[in-house]
Amino acid sequence: MLAAVIHAERDIRVEDVPDPVLSTGGDAIVRVVAACVCGSDLWPYRGVTPTKAPKRIGHEFVGVVESVGDDVSEIAVGDFVIAPFYDCDMTCINCRNGVSTSCLEGGWWGADDRMGGFADGAQGEYVRVPHADGTLVSVPGGMPEREMIPNLLTLADVMGTGHHAAISAGVGPGSNVVVVGDGAVGLCAVLAAKRLGASRIVAMSRHSSRQDVARAFGATDIVEERGAEGANRIKELFDGVGADCVLECVGTEESMDQALNSARPGGQIGFVGVPNGGPQLPVRALFGANVGVRGGVAPVRNYIEELLPDVLAGRITPGRVFDMELPLAEAPEAYAAMDERRAIKVLLTP
Amino acid sequence: MLAAVIHAERDIRVEDVPDPVLSTGGDAIVRVVAACVCGSDLWPYRGVTPTKAPKRIGHEFVGVVESVGDDVSEIAVGDFVIAPFYDCDMTCINCRNGVSTSCLEGGWWGADDRMGGFADGAQGEYVRVPHADGTLVSVPGGMPEREMIPNLLTLADVMGTGHHAAISAGVGPGSNVVVVGDGAVGLCAVLAAKRLGASRIVAMSRHSSRQDVARAFGATDIVEERGAEGANRIKELFDGVGADCVLECVGTEESMDQALNSARPGGQIGFVGVPNGGPQLPVRALFGANVGVRGGVAPVRNYIEELLPDVLAGRITPGRVFDMELPLAEAPEAYAAMDERRAIKVLLTP
Repeated sequence: MLAAVIHAERDIRVEDVPDPVLSTGGDAIVRVVAACVCGSDLWPYRGVTPTKAPKRIGHEFVGVVESVGDDVSEIAVGDFVIAPFYDCDMTCINCRNGVSTSCLEGGWWGADDRMGGFADGAQGEYVRVPHADGTLVSVPGGMPEREMIPNLLTLADVMGTGHHAAISAGVGPGSNVVVVGDGAVGLCAVLAAKRLGASRIVAMSRHSSRQDVARAFGATDIVEERGAEGANRIKELFDGVGADCVLECVGTEESMDQALNSARPGGQIGFVGVPNGGPQLPVRALFGANVGVRGGVAPVRNYIEELLPDVLAGRITPGRVFDMELPLAEAPEAYAAMDERRAIKVLLTP
Repeated sequence: MLAAVIHAERDIRVEDVPDPVLSTGGDAIVRVVAACVCGSDLWPYRGVTPTKAPKRIGHEFVGVVESVGDDVSEIAVGDFVIAPFYDCDMTCINCRNGVSTSCLEGGWWGADDRMGGFADGAQGEYVRVPHADGTLVSVPGGMPEREMIPNLLTLADVMGTGHHAAISAGVGPGSNVVVVGDGAVGLCAVLAAKRLGASRIVAMSRHSSRQDVARAFGATDIVEERGAEGANRIKELFDGVGADCVLECVGTEESMDQALNSARPGGQIGFVGVPNGGPQLPVRALFGANVGVRGGVAPVRNYIEELLPDVLAGRITPGRVFDMELPLAEAPEAYAAMDERRAIKVLLTP
């Protein structure tokens, strides 16, 4: 089958790779209907994280179950399924605590030596899914309409991650919210905050096309300034003190500083930007202002059941973050378009 | 009048100082009935924070209102009042948001150049209280029984601070809790967790007298080990993964590490230990495990109304943390006893 493989910085190739095979009894083989490129895929693409050897890539997909192992009982051949950006058993203590990203048995797409052998990345024609009963969620009604697919695909990562930012920041009815980051996750965080009842939502964005999506998702204000100027604008908007909830959706030291400077005393930062290089948090400043910080790698599998009905009913349309669609064979162009910010997020169809 | 003054490391003197006078219209003068020494007072005492010039000290007191300014309307002469460890107006946006420690008009006992002039510390015979209507809480029924006074005095700081740790960590019915620190705040954090419905509460303590108070306050388990060994014991106690809520009540890098290593994935740390030297938080580790951190200088004024009825009704007896009582004139011995851990907390009577 064909799959995307990263060989080195800015070197993505779509190549023939071995077909996946059922290995553990708990596996499923899924034919990928749609996959996509994540902002975090740009790290190895840009060389920020080095690629030491050719490696399968991609971690977001929806598709149709082609076959299942003998121990699989919940998932059936023919199901249209959503996979989170990791696999998990949903039975261990961490999964039951709502943190399936810390599954004691789980792992990451594309990682070597995953149970049963090599794990597929998601940017390919097929994926072997360990812990299929835990990992996958079947969409009621089977194969959805074509226009529903991008919305469902966001539940694999970006919508669940934006939701996690909002949940981690304690967004609820009436909250004042600032979203730092206008990538797909930041935009989904706007939508998640709106869905949770936030009354005022500021999107920090300098890009008019992204501002348009943010407004469509529920942003009430746009702030283009950054740094101290941006923080001052936020304070002006919120009683001179800052926002209740700040959703950090980038992962750089600058974006975390922006978040810290945008929260009011007693406010809360929900952070889902993958910390790039590991900025440390200034505990003394947090202490003085009673600003809380919570977040991390989003347990999106735990959120799919909650978000799916709203997606299927059309109450939220997070698929709007996809503004480009390409065949899998053009994965290199998908990476380039996202790297150059010509696209917010690119959907790939095998 | 007499008041404690710190002159230098390990040099506390009880001296004649000027009587306080009404200055702003919003002031009250309170005759101190009981004050005490705080763990954080030991920092200048030990020279961890330098004392550049002689300075009034102390920030916890209860007492009787002797006189009030023309603008004071809620507090009346003769009221028995509790003062938090800072002053605040309770009308600004931060006070209304529940974070009176960030009061836009507030300040700290003993600080120079507080509105109206020098501010008294609390270890003295009288204290001028700015923003008396906001700062002070009158105890219903006037002068309480003598044995109730230690309980009420804890609402000035340690009980409210322990409660803040528990609230910041999200303690609720059924929570599994670890408390790091067996000082007065840590012990009050045990009591606060119990009051909020925690089902299992581990006190980390090596001191048998403190363990006894912790058990009396609701601790179900004691862990004497520290460091990696302590964290392993905690993991053993809680499903192999750690506790839901960890209450950090010390403020050193070691204690924060202990807290971070004791929380389960998705757990939450509530921290109220004043960060000594400002350890930074490892954002990458927090991100990977979805461990949240929230806390800070506790807005105890916002908690007094909630906690006071339970104290007056005898449902909680946080005053048990006082295991020594001395006259104000013996303040130097009070500091020495706490420094040498001969006492958990010392009550001072002018």
